[in-house]
Parts: sequence; C-alpha cells; structure tokens
Amino acid sequence: SNEHLYAHKSIQIESGHDVEVVKERTPQGGEWLLSGIICINILMLGCALVSSSAFNVVAITPVHRQIFLITLLVLTMLWMLFYMVVTSRKDRAVLFKDRHAGPVWLKAGLVLFGLLSFLMDIFKIATYVGYLHCDSPVKVAYPIVQAVFLFFQTYFLWFHSRDCVQLHTSLTRCGLTLTLSTNLVVWMAAVTEESIHQTEITHLNISVSHKLYRANYGAKKCTCSHMACETFKEAFYYLYPFNIEYSLFASAMTYIMWKNVGRIVEHHKHYKFNFYVKDVFVGPVAGLLLVVAGLVTFVLYKINILKEDKDKRNKALLIHFIMNIVIVSLMSLSTMIGCIIYRLDRREYVSDKNPTRSLDVGLLVASSLGQFIISYFSLVATVATGAQGYLNVLNLAWAVVLVVEIGLQNYFIIEGLHREPINVMPANARAFQDHAEMANDVEGQISRYSISKKPSWKRRVLREVCAFLLLANIILWIMPAFGARPQFDHSAEIYFYNYTMWNAIVNIGLPFGIFYRMHAVASLFEVYLRD
Amino acid sequence: SNEHLYAHKSIQIESGHDVEVVKERTPQGGEWLLSGIICINILMLGCALVSSSAFNVVAITPVHRQIFLITLLVLTMLWMLFYMVVTSRKDRAVLFKDRHAGPVWLKAGLVLFGLLSFLMDIFKIATYVGYLHCDSPVKVAYPIVQAVFLFFQTYFLWFHSRDCVQLHTSLTRCGLTLTLSTNLVVWMAAVTEESIHQTEITHLNISVSHKLYRANYGAKKCTCSHMACETFKEAFYYLYPFNIEYSLFASAMTYIMWKNVGRIVEHHKHYKFNFYVKDVFVGPVAGLLLVVAGLVTFVLYKINILKEDKDKRNKALLIHFIMNIVIVSLMSLSTMIGCIIYRLDRREYVSDKNPTRSLDVGLLVASSLGQFIISYFSLVATVATGAQGYLNVLNLAWAVVLVVEIGLQNYFIIEGLHREPINVMPANARAFQDHAEMANDVEGQISRYSISKKPSWKRRVLREVCAFLLLANIILWIMPAFGARPQFDHSAEIYFYNYTMWNAIVNIGLPFGIFYRMHAVASLFEVYLRD
Repeated sequence: SNEHLYAHKSIQIESGHDVEVVKERTPQGGEWLLSGIICINILMLGCALVSSSAFNVVAITPVHRQIFLITLLVLTMLWMLFYMVVTSRKDRAVLFKDRHAGPVWLKAGLVLFGLLSFLMDIFKIATYVGYLHCDSPVKVAYPIVQAVFLFFQTYFLWFHSRDCVQLHTSLTRCGLTLTLSTNLVVWMAAVTEESIHQTEITHLNISVSHKLYRANYGAKKCTCSHMACETFKEAFYYLYPFNIEYSLFASAMTYIMWKNVGRIVEHHKHYKFNFYVKDVFVGPVAGLLLVVAGLVTFVLYKINILKEDKDKRNKALLIHFIMNIVIVSLMSLSTMIGCIIYRLDRREYVSDKNPTRSLDVGLLVASSLGQFIISYFSLVATVATGAQGYLNVLNLAWAVVLVVEIGLQNYFIIEGLHREPINVMPANARAFQDHAEMANDVEGQISRYSISKKPSWKRRVLREVCAFLLLANIILWIMPAFGARPQFDHSAEIYFYNYTMWNAIVNIGLPFGIFYRMHAVASLFEVYLRD
Repeated sequence: SNEHLYAHKSIQIESGHDVEVVKERTPQGGEWLLSGIICINILMLGCALVSSSAFNVVAITPVHRQIFLITLLVLTMLWMLFYMVVTSRKDRAVLFKDRHAGPVWLKAGLVLFGLLSFLMDIFKIATYVGYLHCDSPVKVAYPIVQAVFLFFQTYFLWFHSRDCVQLHTSLTRCGLTLTLSTNLVVWMAAVTEESIHQTEITHLNISVSHKLYRANYGAKKCTCSHMACETFKEAFYYLYPFNIEYSLFASAMTYIMWKNVGRIVEHHKHYKFNFYVKDVFVGPVAGLLLVVAGLVTFVLYKINILKEDKDKRNKALLIHFIMNIVIVSLMSLSTMIGCIIYRLDRREYVSDKNPTRSLDVGLLVASSLGQFIISYFSLVATVATGAQGYLNVLNLAWAVVLVVEIGLQNYFIIEGLHREPINVMPANARAFQDHAEMANDVEGQISRYSISKKPSWKRRVLREVCAFLLLANIILWIMPAFGARPQFDHSAEIYFYNYTMWNAIVNIGLPFGIFYRMHAVASLFEVYLRD
C-alpha cells in the first residue's frame, strides 16, 4: 500500500492529467488476492491430479493428467499472446522497466534448458508415435503442445521479464499467476514421472548390469512399431532434469514479473561497477585448476559408472566422492577467510529498499534447502547404518562438508549483497543528510569511505575469495546438471529408505541444488563487483 | 535495514547517551541470517530423523527420534530460562511491546491445547510405565520432559509474546528459532505418529467392528503390566490432534516474536473501536441457530459413527455431510453479499505498514491451504470413481462448496482488514497533508468520511455478515477439533489413494484447517469492529 501511495505522487508529477487513471486503480488493491486464489486452486488441483495419477493406476491415468496439462498450457499461451498484443499496441501499458529483473544468467539458463527440453519433446514425440496403434494419442499431443509452449514462453520471458505493467494490472496479475502455476504443475508432473521411472529401474535390481536392463525394459504389452523407440526413450529420460530446471527458471522469472506489476521504479542513481581482473590472481587460477580437475574426474566417472565390473564402478564413485570433498572443503576454507575479512572491514549496510535483492536472497536460501535435505537424509542413513566401508565414510564426510559449505556460503553472499559498496558514494549518506543533527556523524562517515577507497589488501582478498568460489560453484553445477547422480549409483540410501522415498527426495532436492549453484555464481559475481 | 535506520533515530531522541549501544548493534544486520541457518539445520535433521524412524524400522527406531526430541526440548527450556532471567534483571532489554502480537485468541488457544496436550502426556506416561519391563525407558522419559516443556513454554509465551527485545538481539533471535524449530519438529513427529497409528487401524480392515479392533490391538510381543493400559492408549491417541494444534500455535507465536526482535514500535494513535451489538440482529441469531443445529448433529454423529450397524454409520455420515453443506453454502452466500457491499461502499486502503497485519494475512492464507488440499484430493477421488451413491455425491458437493467458501472468505477478510476504518480519522489523510499540493483532495476526502459516518444500511449489512460468519466458523472449528473425522469414516478416499497417503494428507491438512477456522474467527471479529 506504500507503493500505491508513491505511485499516486510520482505519476502526478510526470503528467498532471493522469490523476483519474491512477485514482481508479488505487482502490483495487485486492487484485493480487484474486490472482493468488487462482494460483492456489490450480496448484492444489494439479497436486491432487499428479499424485493420484502416480499412485492410483485404475481410475486416473497419466492421460488424464496430460489432458489437464494441455489445457493449462493452451490457456497460458492464449494469455501470453493477448499480453504481447496489448502491450505492443498501447505505449502506456509498460511505463517502467526493472533493470534488476531478468538478469542475463536467468535468461541464458532459460534458453539453454529450453532447447534441451525441446529436444526431450522431440524424442518423446518420436517414441510415442511408435505406440500410436495401441496407446492414447494424447501421449503424442502433450509433447507437441509443450514444444510450442516452450518457444512461446521463452520468447515471452526473454522480451518481457523486466516489464512493470501499469494498465490492466488485475488481468495481468491473474495471467502471470496462471503462467506460474502452469510451470509449477509441469514441474510437479516432471518430478513425479522422473521418480517413477527411476523407481522402475531400481526395482529391476540395482546390481543388474545396465545392458540387461536395456534388454528387459521394452518388454511390455504394447510394443513399439519402429526400431529406434528404445534409444529415443532412453534419451528423453536423460533430458528430464533439464525440463525440471526449465520449469523452475520460468517460475522464478514469472514470480519476479508478478511482483513488479504496477510497480513504479525509482530512477535513482544506478551503481556503476568497474570490472577489474588485473588485481586478482590466486583465486581465479586456483578456481580454474579446480574446474579442470573436476571436469576430468567427471568424465572418468561418467565412463566408469556404466561399466559392468563392480570394482570399476566403486572406483569411479571413490574418485567422485574424493574430488567433491576436496572442492567443498577448499570452498569452506576460503569462505571462512572471506567472513573473517568481513569482520575486519566493517561497513554500513545499504539502507534502500530493493525488492529484487530481497527476492534474490529468498531464492538463494530457498534453493539451498534442496541440497540441505539431500545431505541430511544421506547423513542420517549413513550414521544409522554405522558408516561401514570407505565409500560410506566418504559419503558421510561429503554430506557434512556440504552442509557446512552451503551455510557459510549463504552467509557470505547475503552479507556481501547487503554491505555498502566501496567505490560509490554511500546512498546512506544522502539519507542521513536529511537530519541536520547528524551532520557530524555523516562527515566522519564520508571521510572514512574516502580513506578506504585505495585498494586495500582486505578488498583484494575478498575478490580472490569471490573469484575462487564463483569458479568452484560452476564445477559443482556442471557435475549434477550433466548427469552425475552418485545418489543413485551408491546404494546405501536406496536400501535404507525405500526406493520411492529416496527417489522423491533426490528428484525434488537436486534440481533446487542445481538452481542454487547457478544462482550462487550470479550472486558471487555481484559481490565481486561491489567489493 | 529501514528499521535499523529508524532505530538509530528514535533511540537517540529518547536518551542521548545511548548512541554507542545502537551503533554497535546496527552493523550486525546479518544476525537473522545465523538464526535462519540454525533453524534450517535443525528442521532438516528433524525431518530426516522423523521420516527415517517412520519408514525404516531396523536402524532408526522411535527411541532415537525421542532422544533427539528430548535434547531439543531441554535446550529450548534452558534458553527460555536464560531469557526470562536476563529480561527480568535488565530493565532496558525490552523497551517496546507490540500490542498487535499475541492476541487473546492465540493465547487462549495455546492454554486450552496445552492443557489437553498435558493430559495426553499423563496418559502416555501411564501407558508406557506398563511397558517398562520390556521396552525402552525413553518412551516414559519423553512425555515427562514434554509435560514440563508444555508448562515452561506456555508460561513463556503468555508473558513474553509481545516483547520487542532490544538487547542481546543476536542471541535472542537464535533462541527463538531454536524454539520455533523444536515446535515444528515436535509437530512433524506428532503428525507422523498419528498417521502411522491411523494406518494401523485402517489396515486392520475398515469394515471390522470397533469392538473387535479394540480386542485385537493390544496383542503384541511386549504386553502391558497393568490393566488400564489399553484405555490410556486409546485416550492419548484421541488427544494427539490437540498436541498438533498446540505446536502450530506455539510456532506462530514464536515466529511473531522473532519478527519483533529489535523492532521499534511506533506509538501512533491506536484505533479505538467501539463494540456495538445493538444494531445487528439477523446475523447473530442465524449464526447461533446454526451453531446449535451443528452441535446437535455433531453429537448424533459421534454417537452413531461408533455403532456396529453399517446403516447407522452411513446415516450419521449422511446427516454430517448435509449439515456441513448447509452451513458452508449459507456462509458462501453471505460472504458474497458482503463482497457486493464492498463494491458498493468503496473506501481507501490503509496505507501504514503493519507487520502484524501482513503476518495475520499470511497465516490466514497459509493455513487455508490445509483445507484446500483435503478438498481437492477428495474432489479428484470422488470424480474419478464416478461419484456413485448418495454419500459420494454429498462428499463431492461438500468439497466443491468448501473450496468456494474458503476462497470467498479469504477475499472478504483480507479486503476488510485493508479497508480504511469508518469510525476514525483516516491515517491516510495525515500522510496526504504532508504534501501541500494535495490539500484540496484531502479536504474532499475528509468531508466524504464525515458524511458516511452516520450508520448506513451498508455498514449494518456488513456487520450482520461478519457476525454470522464468525459464529459459523466457530461451529466449523468445533466439529473437526473435537473429533469428527468423516475423512476416515467414509472409505472412498482411503480406497482410492493408499492408506498411508490419505492419512498423511488429512493429518497434515486438517490441523491447519482447524487453525484456519480459529484464525478466521479472530480476523472476522476485527473486521466487525472496523466496519
């Protein structure tokens, strides 16, 4: 409601004759309420449909769920079309752009995962065309609609993710929550399908060779009519994680758009940061070495884990675990150094309200929960079974170090984003100047900032830490994103929890963990620039 | 960070020599971060322990979980003791009280559910004392510690729930998140235990007579040494839902306290509302009739549902369903009338920032999700099985009307809480007066308010609607809170989903639904006073 009051003022200043328009809008403050109710209802219905199609094979089949999803996708596309037509015609619909929204890493991730999801849909279509003679045509229709939707949505979010819509706000909010809930229902459906598929594989017996599994898998009642079917099927299941990531990225961007509806962006002085690389050296070099070493072990892992020889699979796991523990321990160590520097080099906190930063911090903490939950479940399982054998000990160590590292890194990033940047006149100082009684205090502050402007060793160490953490997060992103799943290759947790439960935990937690790494990279880059 | 800036100013105004204290505190803005990290870690570990003790009977037993819980409870009690000693000694520790926090309905609910939980613990101790010769003593120790904890925490929250702590803020925040996570882990454990117990009953065969079940249930390896064991056991399982509610109430109050740490409460003019009853009549009378009718059918239901005769059980269900549909339909109708009045009698929105109101709205919407999810799962199950038989049709109708009613009621309450109260000078007007250019506008506004000050028919209708909804929510609270569980007596959903899943849904959703009804009563009372 504060924002509404502000809107009132600033639009009036811009153009005197617009008072009527704004006045009409202000009393409808409950517009977010209606969009919220729509979102909750779609999500609950989606949740009920997805879970019953997963657990009850008699009355509700995946076909029912897919019909529901097709309806949602088509409705969302119609709304997006409507939105794009309206905003292109009326030049007053979007008065402001939020420069913080839709950062380049989110957009790039969206396009990358969108393309891989598109590939998944192609493979799906190719597979289910072969089953058309004995299975429902909906199974072909759904990937077709989804492929079209992918293009639509990626285009929409690429060009409109920074919009702060001012007209038809009520309708726009409802449309955006429709988009948000569609993406979340698609996400739920993908997670469930992936979990069921994983459970089917694991149930076939974990120690069975992968070749044997491949031969058995196709033996169902309804057989495929073309030869490439099995290959396509295996290929599209590999691409599921990317589709899950795509839905998460699209949801995050839609949520930011929803928050920005009707928002008036203050055109206050934008911090202009300079990107220096010359004064850092140790961090980037150590980080790059880590990335290269990580890539080598990742390739070795991917090759050896598919071998039939159990010793070779265990060796692959051993190398993977050790590499991960080394990376994460080094990260914890350097984050600790960074936190100590924070203590030594105390600064004021930025006092301006920034919704995008709050959202960034919220997303960072929320997505880190994914990795936290996997690590804690691993930890409990390993401790309870007594951590027998070197693989279990390493698994336990990895879980513990990960929890420490994520906790420290969250602290480091959030603290870094809230500290006053060093190379600009503090925004705080301006706020203080309003209060004449504080003039002395302000002068002291400004002089303190001026003194610390020369690049000190503290700033340099902080930049080294940021650069190192940034690169380390990249390798920790690459490994799970491109298919390293030690959670399923190492059987301790699968035996401890039942199959379905462990699959559900990993399939919900891991995509958030991957999102967390990408988000951490972007945030560390910002911290690097600020310091 | 805005609040910090404010703290800086206002404490200085109060006492000039305190600048140093405040200055030292301001830079530690990341204190909520540490407490958040502690909370997440305890919750994740608790989640992993509770689920593995539920699903894995070999390595982790309920005894391990109870040892973990005892540790948490003792730590929390120690912190509470420390807090109470410190705040009683230093008179500057709590400078401000948040008058909106810890409303009377929350406190009353806490004491009521606390007493019933205490009774549950007594029954638990009495039961497990009988198993001491062959079962772990931890099973007796846990209820003893919990009983002590109940007294401690209820005392603590009763006297301190309005505190805005100013000293040791970092430690206080960590202590409060410890309390919050302890309550949430206790809640998780109670929900899981209750679900397992329900599943055990249902697995025994749903159509079996209740007497038969009672005879069978005690037949385990470790038999009880005293006679009253079975009676106690049955009694304490009836009291589980109250313990679940208690944990939710305590969590909500702790969360409000956590939000208030370090907060400076502005002593702006408190709205003084007058409580008139004389000008409403239809609403309260209709509501009271509904409550009486509801109580009668509730007693009939409780008596008949335990009968062995299947026809009588079905008749009890029939009456219960019809009564609920009638109540919920009437509520939807009157809420719709209320929403129409809102449209006719447009007002400004209150523009001041009020954290307690935002939290109230958040809790209202979040707790309504519990009922939403049960209704949608019911709906999907009934539609998918074709809604055969009158009971299924009624169940479907109930689910649909409930979704409509909760959506409408949420809209009505949130809109009502954000409208400018009629019987006070609008706070908005004062804000507007700061801007000289708007003077004309303000005058128009004030005169508009003065004119509408005479009690119009619109205000009267709104009050009738509020009074009616308030009483209707009370009866909808009483029925599930005191043991009406048609979700388990009507077998359609149990057959459709598997036992465990439906139990989990109801046991997580229903306590939130009950919390929702109590919260709605309190919020409707506030809306009634404001209009």
